[in-house]
Amino acid sequence: MQNAFNSFAAEIIPLIDGIIKDFYDRKIKNADRPFMKEIYADIASYCLRKGKRLRPILLLASYEGYKKGKKARNEMALPAAALEMMHSFLLIQDDIIDKSDTRRGEKAMHIITGRYAPLTYNKNIGADVAVIAADVLFSNALELTAAADICNRARRRFLSVFAETYEMTAWGQILDILNSKAKAISPEENIPLDISLMKTAYYTVCYPLLMGNVLATTGPISEKKAIEKFAIPLGLAFQIRDDILGVFGSEEETGKPSDSDINEGKYTLLIRNTIERLQGKKRDDFTQKFLSLKKSKTDAAGIRSAIVSSGGLDFTKEKQASLIDEALAAIGGLAMSQSSRKILEGLAVLLRL
Amino acid sequence: MQNAFNSFAAEIIPLIDGIIKDFYDRKIKNADRPFMKEIYADIASYCLRKGKRLRPILLLASYEGYKKGKKARNEMALPAAALEMMHSFLLIQDDIIDKSDTRRGEKAMHIITGRYAPLTYNKNIGADVAVIAADVLFSNALELTAAADICNRARRRFLSVFAETYEMTAWGQILDILNSKAKAISPEENIPLDISLMKTAYYTVCYPLLMGNVLATTGPISEKKAIEKFAIPLGLAFQIRDDILGVFGSEEETGKPSDSDINEGKYTLLIRNTIERLQGKKRDDFTQKFLSLKKSKTDAAGIRSAIVSSGGLDFTKEKQASLIDEALAAIGGLAMSQSSRKILEGLAVLLRL
Repeated sequence: MQNAFNSFAAEIIPLIDGIIKDFYDRKIKNADRPFMKEIYADIASYCLRKGKRLRPILLLASYEGYKKGKKARNEMALPAAALEMMHSFLLIQDDIIDKSDTRRGEKAMHIITGRYAPLTYNKNIGADVAVIAADVLFSNALELTAAADICNRARRRFLSVFAETYEMTAWGQILDILNSKAKAISPEENIPLDISLMKTAYYTVCYPLLMGNVLATTGPISEKKAIEKFAIPLGLAFQIRDDILGVFGSEEETGKPSDSDINEGKYTLLIRNTIERLQGKKRDDFTQKFLSLKKSKTDAAGIRSAIVSSGGLDFTKEKQASLIDEALAAIGGLAMSQSSRKILEGLAVLLRL
Repeated sequence: MQNAFNSFAAEIIPLIDGIIKDFYDRKIKNADRPFMKEIYADIASYCLRKGKRLRPILLLASYEGYKKGKKARNEMALPAAALEMMHSFLLIQDDIIDKSDTRRGEKAMHIITGRYAPLTYNKNIGADVAVIAADVLFSNALELTAAADICNRARRRFLSVFAETYEMTAWGQILDILNSKAKAISPEENIPLDISLMKTAYYTVCYPLLMGNVLATTGPISEKKAIEKFAIPLGLAFQIRDDILGVFGSEEETGKPSDSDINEGKYTLLIRNTIERLQGKKRDDFTQKFLSLKKSKTDAAGIRSAIVSSGGLDFTKEKQASLIDEALAAIGGLAMSQSSRKILEGLAVLLRL
């Protein structure tokens, strides 16, 4: 049987990509300077790289699930496409901060804009141009949402959720920066949980669903609690899956070098669960190895094997499975159409390890 | 006689600063983590540093000048305050790119957020956190515009001009980056003019006036041409004044070290006018000295004296004066109230050197 999420995604992805492509084709055509045409083309192809388009899909599944009466999928696809552009905005900044050279298996934006290096003595020109190219993207995302023909109440509430989305994501990103390449880890505080909540559960699942809700209905945001009950466990399961793949997945699965998460010292729930399970010298050794800036292939292998032997991996997998069950159980509480519920159910099932 | 711009500014600045202060007082109070409270406080005090608040003032002067019937100054002060927050967003990015440690006579944001350096091995943490703190600012600016009680048509057109504003400013910034610390200068192309148009004339004068117009009226944007006729010469005069002060002004006047523009090799209309006036070896010497990355106090003094002796300074001052006259002459073409015209006239007069 077809997975309802996959079927819906197969309809939505070309719609979203078509909007982004048309938007930038027009921008490229109307730009009057070569550097603008070049960077618009970079931005367009960056946004259109193979990806899940999860946030636009969730926005539209939610919108169609909550909307009574006339649906306007093509109109709502404009704010949905804006979410995808905002996602690229954040990815560009993320790669600059992480000094990561690849994204979705291709060059990071600051590597692409590094082509301007021969013009100046500025050694950082790639990142400098990329930060501002990201600003072009957010301006363009706002342009798309302004273009959508929606009523004042919906536009105002959408903007308000939109603002909340990028603010919470920014706080998650700052918390992540403050805890990356850290000199010490305090496992008493559950920092990876907070980062996963802000940077993934709210950003990727909860807010897109909430946006669909406020675009579809004129009433109060009474669904917020019900949406959170589904979105938070699902988002955490999504992040944990990503964390596990980041350590145990192949380069083909993740689009990045297979040791990169370990080498960066990405402090995830998987790592925290491992540290919690280690005692005394074993814990100190693991933490020290994990926090060290230069890791050999052997160090990476040692970290991987401790994650397994400590029971950290199994515990994290079980936790992930129970989060998916929790999300599935919460779907019944959403006041949306049966067909949208099936889409969310389909997504939850796909996240099983 | 009181200058009408100064009188209006004296009313508006406390209104705008009050909104920003209240907004962040509330954010600080509601934040549940110490790092958020800290960074909100940094953002608030950064936004509230002594400054001209030119963009909010122009938006409100325009709004009140175009609005027939009931005026809603306090409501429109929300999007006006959002412009000031967006300005801080851009200044934070600008200082990271220019590696400039001070802003408005105090620490740049990436220097402030450098306080987190002891936590991690990330040597760039100040800039990394500052880029994302700037994202908090733009999210907050959007939150303020969403909070304003304005009709759908006005909100939609405002958003559309808002998007255009930050896109054009971004292009100006990229053009600036591509021509800073440059290896060569081609005076055939008037790059400083284009940068000044995008980064100053449109950003600081034209778009804030246009935003006031679209917030006040429901008709088509027929005033855009008339606004440009005033805003472009005024904005260029504003930038040229800044360029001249950047080279010949004192640290007290500019809030930055007095050789910093020369040392950075900031390629302005003043520099271009100087190069155009120099011939042969003199031109080559000046250009080479100007482009060199390390300049001594003597080099800076030599550059300054060539700007004077070439006639570049006088020409630029005359050009600036005639741009102000051009702007003054265009005020009559604006379909706004007499009192708002007086405010714009007052600003133009203040920009005389």
